[in-house]
Amino acid sequence: MAKVAVIMGSKSDFPVVKPAVKVLKDFGAEVEVRVISAHRTPEEAHAFAGSARENGVEVIICAAGKAAHLGGVVAAYTTLPVIGLPVKTDMMGGLDSLLSIVQMPSGIPVATVGVNGGENAGLLALQILGVKYPEIAQKLSAYKQAMRDKINSDDAALQSELKDM
Amino acid sequence: MAKVAVIMGSKSDFPVVKPAVKVLKDFGAEVEVRVISAHRTPEEAHAFAGSARENGVEVIICAAGKAAHLGGVVAAYTTLPVIGLPVKTDMMGGLDSLLSIVQMPSGIPVATVGVNGGENAGLLALQILGVKYPEIAQKLSAYKQAMRDKINSDDAALQSELKDM
Amino acid sequence: MAKVAVIMGSKSDFPVVKPAVKVLKDFGAEVEVRVISAHRTPEEAHAFAGSARENGVEVIICAAGKAAHLGGVVAAYTTLPVIGLPVKTDMMGGLDSLLSIVQMPSGIPVATVGVNGGENAGLLALQILGVKYPEIAQKLSAYKQAMRDKINSDDAALQSELKDM
Amino acid sequence: MAKVAVIMGSKSDFPVVKPAVKVLKDFGAEVEVRVISAHRTPEEAHAFAGSARENGVEVIICAAGKAAHLGGVVAAYTTLPVIGLPVKTDMMGGLDSLLSIVQMPSGIPVATVGVNGGENAGLLALQILGVKYPEIAQKLSAYKQAMRDKINSDDAALQSELKDM
Amino acid sequence: MAKVAVIMGSKSDFPVVKPAVKVLKDFGAEVEVRVISAHRTPEEAHAFAGSARENGVEVIICAAGKAAHLGGVVAAYTTLPVIGLPVKTDMMGGLDSLLSIVQMPSGIPVATVGVNGGENAGLLALQILGVKYPEIAQKLSAYKQAMRDKINSDDAALQSELKDM
Amino acid sequence: MAKVAVIMGSKSDFPVVKPAVKVLKDFGAEVEVRVISAHRTPEEAHAFAGSARENGVEVIICAAGKAAHLGGVVAAYTTLPVIGLPVKTDMMGGLDSLLSIVQMPSGIPVATVGVNGGENAGLLALQILGVKYPEIAQKLSAYKQAMRDKINSDDAALQSELKDM
Amino acid sequence: MAKVAVIMGSKSDFPVVKPAVKVLKDFGAEVEVRVISAHRTPEEAHAFAGSARENGVEVIICAAGKAAHLGGVVAAYTTLPVIGLPVKTDMMGGLDSLLSIVQMPSGIPVATVGVNGGENAGLLALQILGVKYPEIAQKLSAYKQAMRDKINSDDAALQSELKDM
Amino acid sequence: MAKVAVIMGSKSDFPVVKPAVKVLKDFGAEVEVRVISAHRTPEEAHAFAGSARENGVEVIICAAGKAAHLGGVVAAYTTLPVIGLPVKTDMMGGLDSLLSIVQMPSGIPVATVGVNGGENAGLLALQILGVKYPEIAQKLSAYKQAMRDKINSDDAALQSELKDM
Repeated sequence: MAKVAVIMGSKSDFPVVKPAVKVLKDFGAEVEVRVISAHRTPEEAHAFAGSARENGVEVIICAAGKAAHLGGVVAAYTTLPVIGLPVKTDMMGGLDSLLSIVQMPSGIPVATVGVNGGENAGLLALQILGVKYPEIAQKLSAYKQAMRDKINSDDAALQSELKDM
Repeated sequence: MAKVAVIMGSKSDFPVVKPAVKVLKDFGAEVEVRVISAHRTPEEAHAFAGSARENGVEVIICAAGKAAHLGGVVAAYTTLPVIGLPVKTDMMGGLDSLLSIVQMPSGIPVATVGVNGGENAGLLALQILGVKYPEIAQKLSAYKQAMRDKINSDDAALQSELKDM
Repeated sequence: MAKVAVIMGSKSDFPVVKPAVKVLKDFGAEVEVRVISAHRTPEEAHAFAGSARENGVEVIICAAGKAAHLGGVVAAYTTLPVIGLPVKTDMMGGLDSLLSIVQMPSGIPVATVGVNGGENAGLLALQILGVKYPEIAQKLSAYKQAMRDKINSDDAALQSELKDM
Repeated sequence: MAKVAVIMGSKSDFPVVKPAVKVLKDFGAEVEVRVISAHRTPEEAHAFAGSARENGVEVIICAAGKAAHLGGVVAAYTTLPVIGLPVKTDMMGGLDSLLSIVQMPSGIPVATVGVNGGENAGLLALQILGVKYPEIAQKLSAYKQAMRDKINSDDAALQSELKDM
Repeated sequence: MAKVAVIMGSKSDFPVVKPAVKVLKDFGAEVEVRVISAHRTPEEAHAFAGSARENGVEVIICAAGKAAHLGGVVAAYTTLPVIGLPVKTDMMGGLDSLLSIVQMPSGIPVATVGVNGGENAGLLALQILGVKYPEIAQKLSAYKQAMRDKINSDDAALQSELKDM
Repeated sequence: MAKVAVIMGSKSDFPVVKPAVKVLKDFGAEVEVRVISAHRTPEEAHAFAGSARENGVEVIICAAGKAAHLGGVVAAYTTLPVIGLPVKTDMMGGLDSLLSIVQMPSGIPVATVGVNGGENAGLLALQILGVKYPEIAQKLSAYKQAMRDKINSDDAALQSELKDM
Repeated sequence: MAKVAVIMGSKSDFPVVKPAVKVLKDFGAEVEVRVISAHRTPEEAHAFAGSARENGVEVIICAAGKAAHLGGVVAAYTTLPVIGLPVKTDMMGGLDSLLSIVQMPSGIPVATVGVNGGENAGLLALQILGVKYPEIAQKLSAYKQAMRDKINSDDAALQSELKDM
Repeated sequence: MAKVAVIMGSKSDFPVVKPAVKVLKDFGAEVEVRVISAHRTPEEAHAFAGSARENGVEVIICAAGKAAHLGGVVAAYTTLPVIGLPVKTDMMGGLDSLLSIVQMPSGIPVATVGVNGGENAGLLALQILGVKYPEIAQKLSAYKQAMRDKINSDDAALQSELKDM
């Protein structure tokens, strides 16, 4: 069974992380959710990242805000794909979080999604897993079709609403 | 054999893309390199992305600058993981490219690396492939160790240089 | 009769789009309003844009936020003038939407208006139509005069209010 | 014959404006090129804009940098479509020019293209004229096809170059 | 008697302008307050600015937001000192207004104060008038002393509050 | 005779300041040019600003870059009008200098011109002096007319150049 | 006993400063809290900074917003370490305060913490004092351990909460 | 003897770090200079930071660019004061480095200096040491006086140069 770890630097980031957990569980992945801080519990971050692969984790999602080092610190200790999820802040809407995560030096990439993009972090993990697990790839196709259907039904609904305007 | 497609919006982006191609080949991946523009050849982009999975592609890297839509357009037509590689521009050092790539709407993630981060785009593709191919994961560990050795030997070299100062 | 299409990437963008629809209808233009997503319904976007001219559409307004690719994707498939309407976001007040729309590569312009500038998107469409339809140009002159009168009456009102202060 | 005016705030902006003039002439449009400053020759700007329509001008392109008021000042005196072309500056790559042009108040749109986007300013003018002049619309289709052919031949060229690498 | 004109692009900017009017009146200056739009009433702006000096105006304050051209347009028609007062917007807290006002081309300065800095716009006008009118300069010294006293009494108050904490 | 002080935080800022000095001298003003640093010679800054008015100075221009405190520090010790001239830096083209100068707290305005706007700093000083000295106001009108003539002759020159193209 | 001065430019900044005062008192440091404005009470700022060392102050924390000159002005008059605490503003979330504080010229550093980082300003002062006072260094270790324990207990709490979800 | 560690994430950052090393040595401090990467040699970073205090280090300077995590990672493992030195990049002149360093979460401050502010990083370390070592504090006073003398002699030199102009 595919396994994803979702870690956040502070428990208060959970609402941003929640849509990632949800979509991962909806797809049937095993999800380990953790509060681990790059700065307050660096040894736990090291221990977690260093043993993630042998513990069966296949993708790691790291959510953090401001000087958001968690993704980089985890990526330093593993060769698993690490997804960085920037948390919105007051500093230009999270530009600090985004730049702290995405502008990694050569050799240590962090796969960054948009600010507060929890669902996309989860879906990206699933796309990565879909390379290995054909059943996840299939579910992603169904998910894509459902999004398409939703937009088309929104479009249809708008047409009737506009008629009444 | 693991297969990665590397596409760029304009042939002039090749220098940014080249380190991705190099690291992928160094790891023994099969690499398809293409010039496909989201805006000038949208049908080719559609055709490419729509058939990528059945053509054996497992990860797609998309390099583009300014209003860099290529990653998003490709991601619209596939459920493969898409890596977005923002190309540096004159607009705040590529902030336009970065935001156009990373700020994707819910449902269609693009895994973004830093501006002009060609090597990291390649390494991220390899980390993704490493989930499926253990031999790639092993090579990534060796690569990580080599980086570590390089820093340590730079540190040692600096010590002797400083002695002579 | 002049015809404008107004499309949005998500039905939740309708409040931003509404002033465009209103001013277009006030001027007597035929307006087609649609929900079409560059990323969730790319084939619908292709089909719509590719057939817009033959369906009598003369100008297309595209509203989108964040990595706002809709204008560019539509412009890729048509030679009609495409107006990009950036939707406000949390990222620096919509700078992400603005840059994703305005910074188009050579060959594929998108005529960009200000963030959340729905009314201006509609007026720009009317100015474009006014090149062909003299009656629209005439109405634009009247509209301009009404704006002038409004400012002048605001100025007069302020004078009396200040006297009482 | 379709007629476009291309005005710039300073003669030193001519290199940015030149690709607009070139593409307009290539398409057979009549082009009037002028140096008119919103701040140094405001009366000339007023006179020009106020009489542009009766002088047969159908679209106006305004290039300016920094506090780039030219487009707004011209748009204040005409109901013709006005295209704003931001000139690159040292201030964040032209963000000052871009925001000064695109963020127009309700009622007075300026159709903004990307920073230093001279060719796109010309093409947008042609797309606008194409609404009225079918022969211009036809030439735009040919232009679009030529861009597509160019990308495809770049792609083919890259394939052979890569073989030799 | 010293005379200052305070103009705003929209009556909705009055709350930003009000502290300027207040401090000017507190100092005994004659104040003319007007709603004049650079874009909606350009001829009124021209007429106002062109005759301001002969009408006895000695300093002009111009408040505007977004593509805030009012200061520049007024400065184009007068050699009086023009103070630009940027109004806060959603775009990065008014960076659009600020850059549109401050980044004027050589030859046409606009004396810019901080975003929503109404009181400072008024005080700057008074400092300018103080060059000519010694009684205003004297009142400015008293005002400065009062500010100093206020800070010192705030400091004293804080000391007692902290004792009680 | 009208007197202006032009001070800079570092002698290396002289090239930015030079156009201010030049235009002031061209207009016949007396100019005192000084190197005084807010941080390295704070006591000199205090002494200079505190006695400027009694020494006959009527306007002070302060050029500084990065955390550009000079204008604010001088304004703290005088009620003369203080013009802030931001010097270009590597940080977003001088946005650091601009914000450090323009965003002054209520009570202590600094009249800010554009980044590296030396000539405008000088002209603004002259406009301020023109409130008191009619002969300076007259020279400003002539200067304005000369700028207008220059643009018109540039426009005429461009017409002949284009004919030959 | 270790002594820290905490000064703010306006009494309204006290909520930002309070966590600094609190952590300093919790660690047993003597804290002097003052309202001193770089611009409104520059002589008090000079007097305070110039005599701080002889008054037993060992570290100075300066909180200020917008054109936040307080830290720089204080640092100009002392060789004690000065910590700059940027206060959040509407301008891009406090980027103006941050740049005005951190971008100091060579020779006069200000040790800058994050926007509204009151607690960190206090802790940085304690780390500086810990170089001299071993008992403070010891308390900092305990504080670090308490943070670690808090994260670990948050992590444990999350595990149970997730079980119930 | 006072001891400072200066570490950099990459040997190529040495030119930025060099002025810090120089000023520290000029003041007679013992300096340990190291290349240690937060991402490539995380274990070395941990080992270094964890044992710095017992090895006699009293202040640590960390230079890094882009997603500059080095300061934060070191601060996670020590209670010594950590100075963050942001290295200039292409992304808005180093705003990425600056925000990644300064915006640390509560509990783990990094004392940040300006972009490429090597000398200031060294001086800040000396100011911190000056709290403990009176002879360093004395040398800082002399250094401050020398800076003052330099500005005053620059001012004098400018006066003679201007006479000859």
